[in-house]
Amino acid sequence: MTKPSIPKGTRDFGQIEMARRNYIFDTIKGVFALYGFQQIETPAMENIGTLMGKYGEEGDKLLFRIQNSGEKAALAPEKGLRYDLTVPFARYVVQHREELSFPFKRFQIQPVWRADRPQKGRYREFYQCDVDVIGSDSLLGELELIQIVEEVYRRLGINVCLHINNRKILAGIAEVIGAPEKIVDITVAIDKLDKIGVEAVNAELVERGLNDDQVAALQPILNLSGTTAEKLTALKGILANSEIGLKGVEEMEVVFNELDIVDCTLNIELDLCLARGLNYYTGAIFEVKALDAQIGSITGGGRYDNLTGIFGLPGVSGVGISFGADRIYDVLTELDLFPKELQSTTQVLFATFGAEELNYALKWAKALRAQNIAVEVYPEPTKMKKQMGYADAKQIPYVAIVGSDEMNNNTVMLKNMSTGEQKQVSLEELCTIL
Amino acid sequence: MTKPSIPKGTRDFGQIEMARRNYIFDTIKGVFALYGFQQIETPAMENIGTLMGKYGEEGDKLLFRIQNSGEKAALAPEKGLRYDLTVPFARYVVQHREELSFPFKRFQIQPVWRADRPQKGRYREFYQCDVDVIGSDSLLGELELIQIVEEVYRRLGINVCLHINNRKILAGIAEVIGAPEKIVDITVAIDKLDKIGVEAVNAELVERGLNDDQVAALQPILNLSGTTAEKLTALKGILANSEIGLKGVEEMEVVFNELDIVDCTLNIELDLCLARGLNYYTGAIFEVKALDAQIGSITGGGRYDNLTGIFGLPGVSGVGISFGADRIYDVLTELDLFPKELQSTTQVLFATFGAEELNYALKWAKALRAQNIAVEVYPEPTKMKKQMGYADAKQIPYVAIVGSDEMNNNTVMLKNMSTGEQKQVSLEELCTIL
Repeated sequence: MTKPSIPKGTRDFGQIEMARRNYIFDTIKGVFALYGFQQIETPAMENIGTLMGKYGEEGDKLLFRIQNSGEKAALAPEKGLRYDLTVPFARYVVQHREELSFPFKRFQIQPVWRADRPQKGRYREFYQCDVDVIGSDSLLGELELIQIVEEVYRRLGINVCLHINNRKILAGIAEVIGAPEKIVDITVAIDKLDKIGVEAVNAELVERGLNDDQVAALQPILNLSGTTAEKLTALKGILANSEIGLKGVEEMEVVFNELDIVDCTLNIELDLCLARGLNYYTGAIFEVKALDAQIGSITGGGRYDNLTGIFGLPGVSGVGISFGADRIYDVLTELDLFPKELQSTTQVLFATFGAEELNYALKWAKALRAQNIAVEVYPEPTKMKKQMGYADAKQIPYVAIVGSDEMNNNTVMLKNMSTGEQKQVSLEELCTIL
Repeated sequence: MTKPSIPKGTRDFGQIEMARRNYIFDTIKGVFALYGFQQIETPAMENIGTLMGKYGEEGDKLLFRIQNSGEKAALAPEKGLRYDLTVPFARYVVQHREELSFPFKRFQIQPVWRADRPQKGRYREFYQCDVDVIGSDSLLGELELIQIVEEVYRRLGINVCLHINNRKILAGIAEVIGAPEKIVDITVAIDKLDKIGVEAVNAELVERGLNDDQVAALQPILNLSGTTAEKLTALKGILANSEIGLKGVEEMEVVFNELDIVDCTLNIELDLCLARGLNYYTGAIFEVKALDAQIGSITGGGRYDNLTGIFGLPGVSGVGISFGADRIYDVLTELDLFPKELQSTTQVLFATFGAEELNYALKWAKALRAQNIAVEVYPEPTKMKKQMGYADAKQIPYVAIVGSDEMNNNTVMLKNMSTGEQKQVSLEELCTIL
């Protein structure tokens, strides 16, 4: 019989990986809760009509479809596995709009599936962790998400820079250089500035149909530098004739002003080259990069004014971000930032060598668990070496050994597994040590 | 455009449902951790060969199959959604056996999918919550699982009765009545005793090929009564000529003895009619019923000596139980046992009526969150009524109102939403109240 395996692009998560993943999710959830975001979950499968056409032609091809089974299979609507959390969220908001109170602040942490070609760091099943506030166009949404980014990465110990841009500014730029219909081409091209450099971007702009004057007019924007305040002032000049552009600048000013008021210490950069290649953002665009690791974006998002329009509910504005759990995991691993005590929840293992000792250990274990101390009792009276090996493998910090001596004077012999030190301790002393 | 919907038999979980579900899972996880069980996760999809033939012919039909997509679709192995957590766990243990240290104590909380006909209380997507220890035949496993049941339901506040049986006793019974090959028929029939009564069970036994003498020989067992000790003593007599039967009785004696040692106060009934219709149990069989709700089994499981044999690793004994999250949810709802404070995480909402007040509220919100107090700031300066309505809908207990008076003397007007009481409080006072 061949060793069993799992589908390409999927993963098993063992105990240590799960403890680390839970550490990330629990940290993020703890911060979400401080801002009143509440969790929802949607089904793994959606009707295929909910998913099709929402991710472009390429996305449609990457949907995992479910075969109908059981009775009346041919009559049942087709289904597919969810591709992201955004479209199911939009569907959820429209379907449940009568029950929800707006602004609706939700987060959602669930796996998504894409029939992508598996490669390093790209999986066919992976978790997304989305937080959105929908039903309000207040810029307080942007502020809170930035504060959440600040606090999450402070708690995780990762130094980050948040890049921020605004789709309205990009629209204004397209307008003032006289190519408003080229906004998508312009943003797609300048999104690559970091990667390919200004020459290549300019070449791509020409290729995408901009004339030389228009490319020249873009240069001051590509070269914009200085503090955020200086950049915004410069933009006001450049965009003086674009209503939408000025609106974008004003939005950024409000957000930066509020960030000052709450003493935000996050490293934030107004980055006009940030577009995230996504067409549904209508206001702020965010992207977070880890400063001490080369891994790309670990969080991103923005404001969208028409997410639920695809399901027949237009005019509902929202803003959201998504934390990339897999990449955050990789950064924490690379920088060795996971807390050490995640490895084991068990604080003491009782080694056992006979029936009487086992019964003695069971009573102690019960008393310790009543103090909320995690305890294991080795289930078989095997060799000491094997029991110690179990404690080592599970990184259990203490082993308690019971002999007749210990049973007589109501103690256990406690071995510290990192120092090798041993001493007889009473139950009370053991509670104090643990 | 028609209102969007989700596939039949699947569910959305809103904020309150999620808070309640998380309360159940967190309670259970907290108890698992006390015993050193650690979490794993497996992919939603397994290769179809991993799943097929493991759930009987009927089960095969209920598997959701995934259509391959992307390049080389025709060449890729077929996949299916996981049908339970048991088979993926067996596959996991075999696949990762070199990395695991045995006894391996794991729990797993993930959704499973079955193309069952949806009906009340039966879903096509639902969560299972399994806890198992594998790689040891020690009866300490049985003891710990019973202790876990005791503690989980104590914490949840549900009165339960744990029914326990042993497959070896059932085998012994079949042996002594002279029909060892009929063990499955006998257990399937007597499993129904509660539901259909002794007459109907006897009729079914005859139908399944037992003769009158054999049915008569079964009657003392169907009518067994008294305390557990009395039942076990009677069984020793009845099963005197069956080695396997006596082994089963001895196992039960060991478990009940250990339960005495740890002062287990759980309501436990030795129930020889319990078979759970499952053929892979080889020792103890468990089932937990809520005493104050008519809902059937809310937890069940048992010992299996050959779970991993299906994947080529024979002789690995394990014992496990599964908590039925949906039914536990229903019991807690019916008995009104969910803690009230689950409804909202937010403790205070700042109502806002202008830019200056908003900035003032933002500073307070920041200070409160630094104390780990969950705070929301209403994002728009709308009517008081709307903001209060938001607090009501989200069951936020306090609303803080900011006016020029409050800004001048560094306070907020705090409204208690359940009593309607209002008073001016300082930040320090507010922290104390919350």
